[in-house]
Amino acid sequence: MFRSHNCGELRISNAGTPATLCGWVQRVRDKGGMVWVDLRDRYGITQLVFEEGKLTAELLEKAKKLGREFVIQTTGQVAERYAKNDKLETGDIEIIVESLDILNASKVPPFLIEDETDGGDDLRMKYRYLDLRRNPIRKALQLRHKMMQKTRQYMDQQDFLEVETPVLIKSTPEGARDFVVPSRMNPGEFYALPQSPQTFKQLLMVSGFDKYFQIVKCFRDEDLRADRQPEFTQIDCEMSFVEQKDILNTFEGLVRFLFKEVKGIEITDIPQMDYANAMRLYGNDKPDIRFDMKFVELNEVAKGKGFSIFDEAELIVGIKAEGAATYTRKQLDALTDFVRKPQVGAKGLVYVKCNEDGSFKSSVDKFYSQEDLKTWATKMDAKPGDLLLIMSGDTNPTRSALSVLRLHMGDELGLKNPEEFKLLWVIDFPLLEWDEDTQRFHAMHHPFTSPQKADMALLDTDPGAVRANAYDMVINGVEVGGGSIRIHDRETQALMFKHLGFTKEEAQIQFGFLMEAFEYGAPPHGGIAFGFDRLCSLFGGSDSIRDYIAFPKNNSGRDVMIDSPSPISNEQLDELEIKLK
Amino acid sequence: MFRSHNCGELRISNAGTPATLCGWVQRVRDKGGMVWVDLRDRYGITQLVFEEGKLTAELLEKAKKLGREFVIQTTGQVAERYAKNDKLETGDIEIIVESLDILNASKVPPFLIEDETDGGDDLRMKYRYLDLRRNPIRKALQLRHKMMQKTRQYMDQQDFLEVETPVLIKSTPEGARDFVVPSRMNPGEFYALPQSPQTFKQLLMVSGFDKYFQIVKCFRDEDLRADRQPEFTQIDCEMSFVEQKDILNTFEGLVRFLFKEVKGIEITDIPQMDYANAMRLYGNDKPDIRFDMKFVELNEVAKGKGFSIFDEAELIVGIKAEGAATYTRKQLDALTDFVRKPQVGAKGLVYVKCNEDGSFKSSVDKFYSQEDLKTWATKMDAKPGDLLLIMSGDTNPTRSALSVLRLHMGDELGLKNPEEFKLLWVIDFPLLEWDEDTQRFHAMHHPFTSPQKADMALLDTDPGAVRANAYDMVINGVEVGGGSIRIHDRETQALMFKHLGFTKEEAQIQFGFLMEAFEYGAPPHGGIAFGFDRLCSLFGGSDSIRDYIAFPKNNSGRDVMIDSPSPISNEQLDELEIKLK
Repeated sequence: MFRSHNCGELRISNAGTPATLCGWVQRVRDKGGMVWVDLRDRYGITQLVFEEGKLTAELLEKAKKLGREFVIQTTGQVAERYAKNDKLETGDIEIIVESLDILNASKVPPFLIEDETDGGDDLRMKYRYLDLRRNPIRKALQLRHKMMQKTRQYMDQQDFLEVETPVLIKSTPEGARDFVVPSRMNPGEFYALPQSPQTFKQLLMVSGFDKYFQIVKCFRDEDLRADRQPEFTQIDCEMSFVEQKDILNTFEGLVRFLFKEVKGIEITDIPQMDYANAMRLYGNDKPDIRFDMKFVELNEVAKGKGFSIFDEAELIVGIKAEGAATYTRKQLDALTDFVRKPQVGAKGLVYVKCNEDGSFKSSVDKFYSQEDLKTWATKMDAKPGDLLLIMSGDTNPTRSALSVLRLHMGDELGLKNPEEFKLLWVIDFPLLEWDEDTQRFHAMHHPFTSPQKADMALLDTDPGAVRANAYDMVINGVEVGGGSIRIHDRETQALMFKHLGFTKEEAQIQFGFLMEAFEYGAPPHGGIAFGFDRLCSLFGGSDSIRDYIAFPKNNSGRDVMIDSPSPISNEQLDELEIKLK
Repeated sequence: MFRSHNCGELRISNAGTPATLCGWVQRVRDKGGMVWVDLRDRYGITQLVFEEGKLTAELLEKAKKLGREFVIQTTGQVAERYAKNDKLETGDIEIIVESLDILNASKVPPFLIEDETDGGDDLRMKYRYLDLRRNPIRKALQLRHKMMQKTRQYMDQQDFLEVETPVLIKSTPEGARDFVVPSRMNPGEFYALPQSPQTFKQLLMVSGFDKYFQIVKCFRDEDLRADRQPEFTQIDCEMSFVEQKDILNTFEGLVRFLFKEVKGIEITDIPQMDYANAMRLYGNDKPDIRFDMKFVELNEVAKGKGFSIFDEAELIVGIKAEGAATYTRKQLDALTDFVRKPQVGAKGLVYVKCNEDGSFKSSVDKFYSQEDLKTWATKMDAKPGDLLLIMSGDTNPTRSALSVLRLHMGDELGLKNPEEFKLLWVIDFPLLEWDEDTQRFHAMHHPFTSPQKADMALLDTDPGAVRANAYDMVINGVEVGGGSIRIHDRETQALMFKHLGFTKEEAQIQFGFLMEAFEYGAPPHGGIAFGFDRLCSLFGGSDSIRDYIAFPKNNSGRDVMIDSPSPISNEQLDELEIKLK
């Protein structure tokens, strides 16, 4: 054993006993005859004291020469501190050092190993092993560890079986782009890495496994945006003989358990909102309901007064920013600039200030009387002091732009309490969505999602109107999980592939094994998957998932620390029977 | 909810109450006016009774038409059985059926869904989802689930952090062949799938994570033998500030915990044997010590009597098969044939029967007197009734062949008790082994293994004699885990790469990141990895790891169920900028 204790565990009750510690030198304070060293490990920091007269001159010199991040082993007596440090759990004691061994020296790190560091993103990624020494990153990964253990504890208690599904599977053109793996033993053929274990978990239901889960790596070869990683982790789950409400109950239970065990928070009610209402009231299928600011549609009261922009719009819709009538011209202009940004895409913004004296001031006073504006304010339930922000145009883009503005106003008005967690189920998603590029319907969730029975007849006449037995869990405006009741009979699955534009042959080649499995007694089943990286960052109160992944890749999909991807040898290419272009 | 209970939970105390069950039809017995159905799910089997007069004629007809593996939902009253079945946990009750819904029909399965099936390997692999319905396979995967949960429970209690390391990493030529993944965003470059998270777990130690573990998929593109899978699972672990004995203690603890919790077995002592002794006494670095039958070397007593085969041999070595002097000529010939098989590779076998009357009968009576043979018997501690089996030749192949014979005799004499578990640490492995093909030394474990300090001087003079701080855990002759203390300083690591034939440049390109990390305060560290598939099959009492993997691949690396690997589209190849040869 290199140590008797770690750097976080000595207390006043240990005073007067010997201890041997190992760790990293966080800080050296050299006052000539006295040297203090803060020794750090994963568990904490302990203060070491080297005092002239109490040790050899040689040892004192050795202490003076310690550099930041040196790894040392030291032995001494635990002593009560004269000046206690109540910020440290070990702050009541220090070690009066008797011996010191330098286990490994360290070059000066390229950035500060402190909570706030001077290292930029690129440098920290290259030296990720040093970045991981910093408290915030280490704590993020400790949180992740706890989330994993608690997730498994809950799932195990609920009789779910953890089953590992294969990583080397088969490429399918549906959905996102696959990473592929050339097979040496089967030249010209490729495995694919799974985008999710979807078909395998469904087969486990056909196998009668009844309840399955896995915390599993998934892969998507997509162009990376901030916080999208080519490999990511899911809590993947599936159950048999269940209806939608059974699944919602089970996984509300999981999320409540995690909040309770990991954050000590009791989650009370988890409302359900259908997709149509989410779009109508928030312009968004993952509304942040920490604050209200619901959309109010104004077509009835704002048309026919000669304002052609509104008169020609498919939708006129507004939000009420409480107490924001005090916004200056400059602030209002900034909002207009904001909504005109390409990523928001609106053409303009109409405002109405509800003045404290009961009058109204708007950007469309030319067209609307005080009485008109009062009708709007009444419809929007506005009080004096409120600000109305109104947009118009085609329904979908207008809702989408107003949703961005709503979230922006939530930030500006401080309505997004980071300590508050508001959970929501969004249900009744459309089964299909129209894709302009390919001029065909795509599965909104995936091709295995069950249509709602009541809407089956619409599949031929109005496919876009068919609702699915699909649901998302949303926390504070972040989609953390989603799932569906699945199709479990061959005919419906074949029909679904037909509507997605598969020929019979294509469906057979790609998913024949699943459709055949459905013919051997497939039970009704459904499931859900949670984005684990995102869930962890949400629990940690961070917008960045990278801090919650030990070794993330950058936006070009590179691991700059190990310098991967990288060229491979011609021998390797030859063995795989492939060539570079 | 589709059901009020599962098929394994109803008991006599439920009699007189209603129940709704779902499951698969295991068996239908039609006696005309009565139909019995065994309904199966993961949790058990419950008997359903359809009785004429107690239900509609239509319902009785429906029951008669149920086929094997139909999925049904049924409601009825729980009733005490007239004839109880004490082989079933639900055997005291049956369900008097009132309603029946067929949730999904089933074609006749291609093989019997019974403990003993009529399906061959290929058919069962193609319909793996049906094979998984069989009790032995389902139980194997339930055992695996429990092993996973208990492993994590122990590791978490011991303060290990579970950290996910990346799957898309970098190809390195050292060791086995990598699976590679072409990068679309970095054309001409490739990721590799990890053969183990070795360098990442070492970097986590450099990061101060102190104790790491992960149950993780690893990948090797090797020609597959029986029971080798291209993707396999490891319990992967690493610790800082430890010596070898600390690691052995910690992971003895894990294995003891698993035996106790999963099998109810208390493991007592776990002996340690150095590699040299394992080879000398068992001819094998993973001896099965459930039975003794140690090697005894006979060079001193068997040379110089005119038997040229022995006289010219580097090693003469034998084992004692207790009580086997009764072996017939035919049995002895069979043993000789056995050792001459190419996979054993011996040229012949000398036997000595120690007769009950104190005389000896051997296959070399021409050369050796009764007195000579008595000397052998004394040296081998043989009693009347024992059989001595002796081989000779060059040391390594002779030991290796005798080791195979020893295990064979263990089988023949019934010495391998499947209920008994004998654990052993094999320690002090050689650091390097000579490879005839490439005419250079290879790392026996891997290039990050630390040489023993005492042997460092030999690195230049006699590299093959240098011992490593490396250890394997062996259970009943199966290597279930192995690990080492690692190198943690740049100089030793560079020296190691030099001895393995790396140029400085090669070492830098492939492992520069690790050597650089060692310069920023790397702590002393070491670890271990357990082959999880193998460990599960050992706990399950099976020789086959395939039954312990939900969706295994066949010996050509194919998943015959989903038909993978498979060709990919030209568009995919174009995007990746690769071509087929």
